[in-house]
Amino acid sequence: MIPIILAGGSGTRFWPMSRKERPKQFLKLLDDERAMIEATVDRLASLSDEDRPVQIVCHSGLVPPMKEILGEERRVQFIEEPAARDTAPAIAYATACAEALYGDEPIAFFPADHFVAGQKAFERCLRFAAERAEEEEAIITLGIPPTRPETGYGYIECAESIDDIGTELRAEPVVRFVEKPDHTRALQYLREGRYLWNSGIFVFRPATLWAELQRQQPKMWNQVQKLRQTLAADKTNTDELTEVFNDMEPISIDYAVMEGANRVEVIPALFRWSDIGHWAALDEVKDTDADGNVVDADALLDEVTNSVVVSHESQRLIAASGLDNMVIVDTDDALLVIPRNRAQKVRDIVERLKEQ
Amino acid sequence: MIPIILAGGSGTRFWPMSRKERPKQFLKLLDDERAMIEATVDRLASLSDEDRPVQIVCHSGLVPPMKEILGEERRVQFIEEPAARDTAPAIAYATACAEALYGDEPIAFFPADHFVAGQKAFERCLRFAAERAEEEEAIITLGIPPTRPETGYGYIECAESIDDIGTELRAEPVVRFVEKPDHTRALQYLREGRYLWNSGIFVFRPATLWAELQRQQPKMWNQVQKLRQTLAADKTNTDELTEVFNDMEPISIDYAVMEGANRVEVIPALFRWSDIGHWAALDEVKDTDADGNVVDADALLDEVTNSVVVSHESQRLIAASGLDNMVIVDTDDALLVIPRNRAQKVRDIVERLKEQ
Repeated sequence: MIPIILAGGSGTRFWPMSRKERPKQFLKLLDDERAMIEATVDRLASLSDEDRPVQIVCHSGLVPPMKEILGEERRVQFIEEPAARDTAPAIAYATACAEALYGDEPIAFFPADHFVAGQKAFERCLRFAAERAEEEEAIITLGIPPTRPETGYGYIECAESIDDIGTELRAEPVVRFVEKPDHTRALQYLREGRYLWNSGIFVFRPATLWAELQRQQPKMWNQVQKLRQTLAADKTNTDELTEVFNDMEPISIDYAVMEGANRVEVIPALFRWSDIGHWAALDEVKDTDADGNVVDADALLDEVTNSVVVSHESQRLIAASGLDNMVIVDTDDALLVIPRNRAQKVRDIVERLKEQ
Repeated sequence: MIPIILAGGSGTRFWPMSRKERPKQFLKLLDDERAMIEATVDRLASLSDEDRPVQIVCHSGLVPPMKEILGEERRVQFIEEPAARDTAPAIAYATACAEALYGDEPIAFFPADHFVAGQKAFERCLRFAAERAEEEEAIITLGIPPTRPETGYGYIECAESIDDIGTELRAEPVVRFVEKPDHTRALQYLREGRYLWNSGIFVFRPATLWAELQRQQPKMWNQVQKLRQTLAADKTNTDELTEVFNDMEPISIDYAVMEGANRVEVIPALFRWSDIGHWAALDEVKDTDADGNVVDADALLDEVTNSVVVSHESQRLIAASGLDNMVIVDTDDALLVIPRNRAQKVRDIVERLKEQ
């Protein structure tokens, strides 16, 4: 299969560590000193044939810093978006590029900044997904069996309960994609056993996507046809590609294709996963101390529990006392102090800062 | 009278803004852009005759930075302690120095880093204290009528209730000095009406102190006699002064003299006062915003109430959301985050830092 990483995210939820020029995929949020994008590339390296490097889709501005982070050793190839668009244009464009290079091979799309543990199980799931995508002409998604009533994730509803999956690989027809639920609904989903977290990983052959676009998004389909013709004729004619791309409607792949697709299957994942969506989720992927704190800073903590204390490129000492469930993030030019249960509001704070 | 400021405090309670080389009296904690020591000097300027500048007692290391802060305009004179000692040696030494210069004039001692509002009432109280000190040969203290069951202050017990003082100046015999009480006792003191907060301001003639030292602290009295002889003979013989001073027991004036003194009177103060003992006390002396916050920083506050947000020599933006009663202090090399009700624990944090 052709692994493609969608690496255009702006990652405002990890402000002040993440910035426009330093989005989440560039951050070293894990314990292993690799940036998220490094870990993602390494995870996918074994999924493709040796002569097919992992592809990375992002807008041109992110390419130079990403190359620097990834170094010379890693075999990657960039698909440069002329501008930052939503996922539907990015995926259509990347699929057209991959098709021009490798034909109607199954393509697997991955977010750049998620956490996965269990490399073997991950590879097994993906190979199974590629087989299904090829044989069934379906869009295959990976769903994560939920372990808590999470309100920060989208869900995928199956027809049958998948509570009994164990370590068996199977694919279930998708009933529908569900937006982030409130707590009551999330609890209900957890109890019903027919819902999986949407991992943002999906696999399909180019022909499958084209058929869905033709049926569901005729305008985008026409634009894609132009892209394919241009790419088939002369890959270096970037002006025309840019023009067509910039004209595409900035909508998400879920909305444009997934929710209305004829044939979508979900494979319950056998690996551990987190999208590390905000500061409070850091303890899902990093070691905590005896008091439940994630500490990545020069810190003096006195009766501080279940908190996240991080400093980034700052030599400052952080002294804290008598805090529970607090997030403190210190960088060279900005400091964030927020209770854990508000970590998802960081995006709003960044919006307010932009306004000012 | 001779006003003398005791300016040797180390001020660990305002860490990380206060440091060994930048103690509380150097900080601009008030709204008027003056350091605490500047405000204190200005407040006392009118108490002494024109040819008698305000005296400042502190150890030699603090003299150059203090001169820089006070500037050329202010008429002050330094009494350099050979080393940082407790208040009894400092006061005995300063009293001997003042006596050598001005004879048996009443001396008024003041902390360097307290807040006072009501300059006229302040001056009236002090002039009355100097008269009493001269006429009654007593040690005169100033007590602040309490407005809340404060556990951070020492108290002075009077024989009679002073609830009815109004704006009348009077002096009451002191029954005893009381250490910082617990909350139950503080409530009781407030209800009884016979207790005043100890302002740390006291007035006496040199002869009164000498008599008390002779009676209560014979060893220190002998040392003081040597100091006086040396000062009378040759004020520049600093080696001998240093030797005697360094030999003195480092105890507090309260313990050495006040608690056992024959004749101590307290004048209920008619001015507003705070010792600004810790970060949480800042709203007693600084303006608050509509949410009860004291903000002295480039800050974005979202649903933050009753908090203290201060940055010192830092250009960093402080973003906070969903906090109540929190203290955030950001400096160039250290950051403090602590709930308001723990502000008095900052001293312990600094101790732990020193250990490390």
